[in-house]
Amino acid sequence: MSDLPSIYFDNAATTRMDERVLESMMPYFTSNFGNPSSVHSHGRNARVELEKARKKIAGLLHASPGEITFTSGGTEADNTAILGAIAAYDIQHIITSPLEHHAVLHVVEQVAKSKNIRLSLLTVDKNGTIDLNELEELLQNKARTMVSLMHGNNEIGNVSDLKTIADLCQRHSAYFHSDTVQTVGHYPLDLQSLPVHAIAGSAHKFHGPKGVGFLYTKKNKKIPPMIAGGSQERNMRGGTENIAAIIGMAKALEIAVHHQTLHREEIVALKKYFKKEILAAIPGIVFNGLSGDLENSLYTVLNISFPPSDTNQGMLLFHLDLAGISASGGSACSSGARLGSHVLQGIGADASRENVRFSFSRFNTREEVDYTVNQLKELYA
Amino acid sequence: MSDLPSIYFDNAATTRMDERVLESMMPYFTSNFGNPSSVHSHGRNARVELEKARKKIAGLLHASPGEITFTSGGTEADNTAILGAIAAYDIQHIITSPLEHHAVLHVVEQVAKSKNIRLSLLTVDKNGTIDLNELEELLQNKARTMVSLMHGNNEIGNVSDLKTIADLCQRHSAYFHSDTVQTVGHYPLDLQSLPVHAIAGSAHKFHGPKGVGFLYTKKNKKIPPMIAGGSQERNMRGGTENIAAIIGMAKALEIAVHHQTLHREEIVALKKYFKKEILAAIPGIVFNGLSGDLENSLYTVLNISFPPSDTNQGMLLFHLDLAGISASGGSACSSGARLGSHVLQGIGADASRENVRFSFSRFNTREEVDYTVNQLKELYA
Ligand SMILES: Cc1ncc(COP(=O)(O)O)c(C=O)c1O
Ligand SMILES: Cc1ncc(COP(=O)(O)O)c(C=O)c1O
Repeated sequence: MSDLPSIYFDNAATTRMDERVLESMMPYFTSNFGNPSSVHSHGRNARVELEKARKKIAGLLHASPGEITFTSGGTEADNTAILGAIAAYDIQHIITSPLEHHAVLHVVEQVAKSKNIRLSLLTVDKNGTIDLNELEELLQNKARTMVSLMHGNNEIGNVSDLKTIADLCQRHSAYFHSDTVQTVGHYPLDLQSLPVHAIAGSAHKFHGPKGVGFLYTKKNKKIPPMIAGGSQERNMRGGTENIAAIIGMAKALEIAVHHQTLHREEIVALKKYFKKEILAAIPGIVFNGLSGDLENSLYTVLNISFPPSDTNQGMLLFHLDLAGISASGGSACSSGARLGSHVLQGIGADASRENVRFSFSRFNTREEVDYTVNQLKELYA
Repeated sequence: MSDLPSIYFDNAATTRMDERVLESMMPYFTSNFGNPSSVHSHGRNARVELEKARKKIAGLLHASPGEITFTSGGTEADNTAILGAIAAYDIQHIITSPLEHHAVLHVVEQVAKSKNIRLSLLTVDKNGTIDLNELEELLQNKARTMVSLMHGNNEIGNVSDLKTIADLCQRHSAYFHSDTVQTVGHYPLDLQSLPVHAIAGSAHKFHGPKGVGFLYTKKNKKIPPMIAGGSQERNMRGGTENIAAIIGMAKALEIAVHHQTLHREEIVALKKYFKKEILAAIPGIVFNGLSGDLENSLYTVLNISFPPSDTNQGMLLFHLDLAGISASGGSACSSGARLGSHVLQGIGADASRENVRFSFSRFNTREEVDYTVNQLKELYA
């Protein structure tokens, strides 16, 4: 057992923290422990660094610091954006997709019900692609509308055309929120030129710490806070700031953005290699969503549909786990059930086949792919 | 400047993290980085420790693990309890006090307005004491009622009689939430025998990390989540769990509860000493709220009202800061304004006097008190 590898192919669920990120956080766990809202030196030291982190993150996304609110993660950021926009702009119609993360879908369903707001779920084809014509048709409606559509799908990897959607929303005066949790740090985002009103980020998806994220809201499109309390975050979010984690997030985003091209090339190559090898190793492999399409999917995600097999049915993740390989059957938070994933269900994936999401980071290697494909080959021999 | 001391008397705002807490967190920043919701070994390792932490915290408070929900801090816990109870029990009447923390007051004001709920603010005397007879009278009303009253006041230190209030609420079938952020870890809490329905804790108030807290909700009094998303926290709070911080909070609470008697004795002695020395040093000192009353106030808080002085007026905190002493003029989050504190305003504190909150921890020493009293003596010479 001792030489069992520890291969982590579940980077869409969470990533290993970069050592430099941890290093940047350490002073805030020890000497610089002040509350950023305190006026004395202990507080000021923390406050100065808090605002530097905000400025850094804003700069990396071509936003201004006042547009960034720190949150406890992607879910809180999504919730805040959606509930806030609905309250501020008295939204009468919500347009979203059935393939959104639950951080969007659940809050949208709840608020639509409780506030009696019309909810339109776009139709998706078997690859999980939405129909922009349908979106445009729905936008013709003169109701005050909010559109929430994610940038990168965490399960099947589909990347949406944010620019086109944002332009459509702008043309029809709709509020546009995008869950960008899977793309922040991984894809270039220019929030100055992109007419999106709110996006969400979560540090642990780009080698930062868990429990911290941010909400971007466009300057001229103010929304109220969800968590009410002290006047932190310019009254946008009550609660003592998680300063260490915020510093870590800024560092993680800096590393991610500065080395984005390089990391992307490396990971794209790895995904391509995985795809080629697995296709060669096991007959009957197909890919869920667009994840097999290197142009139109997250380079971090490959969602594989394995042929039906008596020995592996319902057991493939378990077998992989025994072999020291961590991968996922759906999103981490909907684990447990078979095809428990609302995304795979939403695209009508074949439940008689075994569906596994492999998701990559710059810490993965070709050797890990080789070992994994070999294990899978044996399981399907 | 190099031998300027660094004296931290602002422990009600936030505390220095215990070294053992940081140590306990480190593995979750490095090797054990899995998402607790993932089913593979990386996730299971995190999940096992997450549930151990929940069990530990529950045990220390005489609660059961299913009654503990991890949050991003005290503010989120307070917000969740209040909004959740109002939704679940269709509350028609909220009773609270004007001296509550903004994490309670602001959410209560907002929800009362938006849902057209009757809001009763108890009257408080010049010491900040509420009138239990008034509370009982208000509870006679047959409306479905929620009471939210804090255990320890973060500014003036008043400690309320939680048992009597809880019994009153029980007798009148009211939902009872208490903001216990200042007392968790510092005072014994037996949630099995105390008929309180919800309390809030925040780790950074007891030498744990910032950005993590917990909500306790009594087993038979379920409430819905505020942050909707994945099925984490038994569907009580969406979002990837902040595992490192949760582990740290459990460790911090363990240390706090195990050594509570000792730490309390030490800090009580320090507060007593500070009180005696400052009374001897400066004529005309009085104490705000009950903070000068060692029996009925937080042993961590001494809120001093200094006599009017031309040289110090509006500048006392600044002078202290220059002398290397960090103290507070109100709660950290309402800093800035003069008598900016709604609590000092609420008890009608004298704005012509300088009001400073000194708040203590087990890391403070008599030497720090001596130095501080000396500095103050000079300032008032
Ligand atoms: C009494 C009280 N309640 C709630 C809070 C809020 O806790 P947090 O800042 O961790 O959200 C604080 C501290 O800021 C407090 O002192
Ligand atoms: C697309 C997407 N949105 C939102 C989230 C929620 O982020 P967090 O778990 O950090 O709250 C996740 C990850 O869990 C995600 O993949």
